Amino acid sequence: MSQATVPDTTAGELDELVQKAHRAYLTARSVPPADRSRWLYAAADALDANAAGLIELADQESHLGETRLTGELKRTSFQLRLLADEAASGEPFELVIDHADPDWGMGPRPDIRRMSVPLGVAGVFGASNFPFAFSVIGGDSASALAAGCAVVHKGHEAHPRLAQRTAAIVIEALAGAGAPDGLFSLVTGIDAGSALVTHPLVQAVGFTGSTRGGRALFDLIADRDQPIPFYGELGSTNPVFVALQAWNARADEIIAGYLGSATMGVGQFCTKPGLLIVPAGSDLAALLQSADVDRGLGQMLMPRLEDGFEKSLQAVREHQGVSTLAGGSGADRMSVLHATAETVLAQPEVLEEEMFGPATLIIEYDGADSALALAEALEGQLTATLQADPGDDVDDLVEVLTRKAGRLLWNGWPTGVTVSYAQQHGGPYPASTASSTTSVGTAAIKRFLRPVAFQDFPQDRLPTWLRDEETTGVRRRIDGTWAGASA
Amino acid sequence: MSQATVPDTTAGELDELVQKAHRAYLTARSVPPADRSRWLYAAADALDANAAGLIELADQESHLGETRLTGELKRTSFQLRLLADEAASGEPFELVIDHADPDWGMGPRPDIRRMSVPLGVAGVFGASNFPFAFSVIGGDSASALAAGCAVVHKGHEAHPRLAQRTAAIVIEALAGAGAPDGLFSLVTGIDAGSALVTHPLVQAVGFTGSTRGGRALFDLIADRDQPIPFYGELGSTNPVFVALQAWNARADEIIAGYLGSATMGVGQFCTKPGLLIVPAGSDLAALLQSADVDRGLGQMLMPRLEDGFEKSLQAVREHQGVSTLAGGSGADRMSVLHATAETVLAQPEVLEEEMFGPATLIIEYDGADSALALAEALEGQLTATLQADPGDDVDDLVEVLTRKAGRLLWNGWPTGVTVSYAQQHGGPYPASTASSTTSVGTAAIKRFLRPVAFQDFPQDRLPTWLRDEETTGVRRRIDGTWAGASA
Repeated sequence: MSQATVPDTTAGELDELVQKAHRAYLTARSVPPADRSRWLYAAADALDANAAGLIELADQESHLGETRLTGELKRTSFQLRLLADEAASGEPFELVIDHADPDWGMGPRPDIRRMSVPLGVAGVFGASNFPFAFSVIGGDSASALAAGCAVVHKGHEAHPRLAQRTAAIVIEALAGAGAPDGLFSLVTGIDAGSALVTHPLVQAVGFTGSTRGGRALFDLIADRDQPIPFYGELGSTNPVFVALQAWNARADEIIAGYLGSATMGVGQFCTKPGLLIVPAGSDLAALLQSADVDRGLGQMLMPRLEDGFEKSLQAVREHQGVSTLAGGSGADRMSVLHATAETVLAQPEVLEEEMFGPATLIIEYDGADSALALAEALEGQLTATLQADPGDDVDDLVEVLTRKAGRLLWNGWPTGVTVSYAQQHGGPYPASTASSTTSVGTAAIKRFLRPVAFQDFPQDRLPTWLRDEETTGVRRRIDGTWAGASA
Repeated sequence: MSQATVPDTTAGELDELVQKAHRAYLTARSVPPADRSRWLYAAADALDANAAGLIELADQESHLGETRLTGELKRTSFQLRLLADEAASGEPFELVIDHADPDWGMGPRPDIRRMSVPLGVAGVFGASNFPFAFSVIGGDSASALAAGCAVVHKGHEAHPRLAQRTAAIVIEALAGAGAPDGLFSLVTGIDAGSALVTHPLVQAVGFTGSTRGGRALFDLIADRDQPIPFYGELGSTNPVFVALQAWNARADEIIAGYLGSATMGVGQFCTKPGLLIVPAGSDLAALLQSADVDRGLGQMLMPRLEDGFEKSLQAVREHQGVSTLAGGSGADRMSVLHATAETVLAQPEVLEEEMFGPATLIIEYDGADSALALAEALEGQLTATLQADPGDDVDDLVEVLTRKAGRLLWNGWPTGVTVSYAQQHGGPYPASTASSTTSVGTAAIKRFLRPVAFQDFPQDRLPTWLRDEETTGVRRRIDGTWAGASA
């Protein structure tokens, strides 16, 4: 979609940027990870130094407010440094050494040593709802750069000027730190996005967005002569299951907490809880009123998202047996729909409608089997949450949800995704197109690497981290046993 | 393709076996990995106990000979035990614990703990050329079972009776060891293969075979409502680059070693060296005769492969500037074709023709730039080999080949793939449809797992390996630092 102020990238410009990125990758891949990490620190420092201006611009384009955007920018520069440190530690490169072994069980073993290498140019798509943390130099870009890839970033139409400004700051910072020219660049427009994922030199794609948009990119990539990994984080309805004792003990607190999470960012989080699954028989309308369900919310990110939200809300409302407990149209306040488990299980497509925006569906279940059946009917999810008290027997539910989701929460709320070593942001399709990977946390770097084994190489021809005399103490698995410093 | 002795699996039978496998997976996933490992040991023991009969049957159907088949069966049972031990050690499940941290750089961090869980039912396709090691209970099946998945195996038409016999032995051994009924089963026929990869309960597919066959499965899987990981190991021409000093010093030894590798198993290895790239100006015909190029070879695995081989050989021969140094038709002896680097670079599709069988192309290059240009023109490869002496400057070549291949060999030959911790069998497409994974070695298990994070779970609700008081000493990363026993 064209923006008056930011012209779309032409096909010729895109090709030139990708070619340049490929040349930058050829340089970057041979630079020690610790040196590359300094480039990411420079980008993080530049973001922090320009925080005020960036946040103001972001607020103009996203309406997300200064508090939230300040936190998000802090998270973004923190993430850059954490991923830089992780790469410098050697951890993502998975160093494994098997010395030659004449007595190996299947027959003599040659000397074989493995480490991971960067894939090449990564195409990264910005998300509308996180103008910093999942956009220009967000998690996908940061993890690709930490891996040693170059990045061509397709800016999101929801914040075109912010994307330009952020990219300019990043490019200047990278240049100042000695990174090769073209290592990071920005392109604009839908056509540029399609050309990016089909360009022969692009070797991986990161995306956060809708199931429809993500599936379109997935299909384009699957049709390439050379298919490449597509790390798409798509739709999720993030169910919250409330067990009986917890509900009896603290229904009001649960409803309040749930609404707080569901309305954050005007319901525009990929981890927004969209399904609240509770024991049948309560006065839900009264509980919702007590939790101030009708309070005014902010503005959605852009008119196109608001249109999509209203259509999606309407689609759920039109199902048989779905009633409206609050709101019911518009994005200015929360819409809460209602159905029974029986109704939903007869029309399970209701469970798949994300309603990206301030809306949620409460489902009343009658007995543990009914809740289990709902869990079994779910598609893949980024998150699934349990609200349960010590006496609640939810072992079976946990078992089912472990098969359905990438992250399980206990008595918490799914919005707010920490960036750490153990984080897992991804889940079975459609939550992710690559459920064995995460787009948040240190493990995200591995998405942009692949292993290479070196067989019988002389010591002086090996990458330094794979040599016997390696002295930095990097962690390696040697003949099956891990040794060396920890990350 | 129907076999008189082994009827094709019907659609109804296939569905029933997949449903049963799914139920078995639901049981298996909750069993501790160490207990599941005992199932694999039972299968390995049963293979060894039945070795004589299996090898005889395999030789009848594959013509590969007793010596080779004895070694391959030994490798297969070794592989089962190595993967079982790896799973029991906890290594593939990547245990990571981040304790709650109020001072975490981006803001307070909840307690979050991650481990990997099995994906579900895996569809596994047997390969024609390794009736044991890449077939019924070969690497793909073993790694899926070690991960906690169930396996429905599509037997290869090249050895239908062996597949039935092996499956019967495996199923009996698994049952005897207490594995759930249906954890492993065998299906037969092309239609069953298509139905397998499109079945909604199948959650991952492993395949070793041709680029054409693999791409057809890839396309079927990409069209699923829910796409799933497809681990396809497809085509590779496994180039061998010979540097100038090495060639001058030992051309005869190199030609003999090369032919030895290229004719192994009648040229029917996925790692068969198919391109020998040497400095220009030698009397290649004389070198080949000295190496006894015209010696008789065995029979190919099946008539269909022989037809494909002859077509492929013919396709390369028809290119302009390609001449014939030895053989030139038929699979009873080695065919050696010849071209110059210049000729090949003008028709780079020649580099992509695998000629699966006893044929190879020798390319003469003129100067280091010419060799580098050939390396750059290559598609993705399972392996790339360098023959070089200490004085040879091949750093640039190694750099290019590291981008092209999954395994690099120094003064060795690519056939013979050891099963170990550092092994990497896979490479950029078309060598593999998932270049960040390996189909051989302990890391193969991770293909059938995906991570799940548990946020703020009470200790007694966590999987035992993620609890604070875990006492088995399994290796875990705790707050960024690895601790515990090594594998």
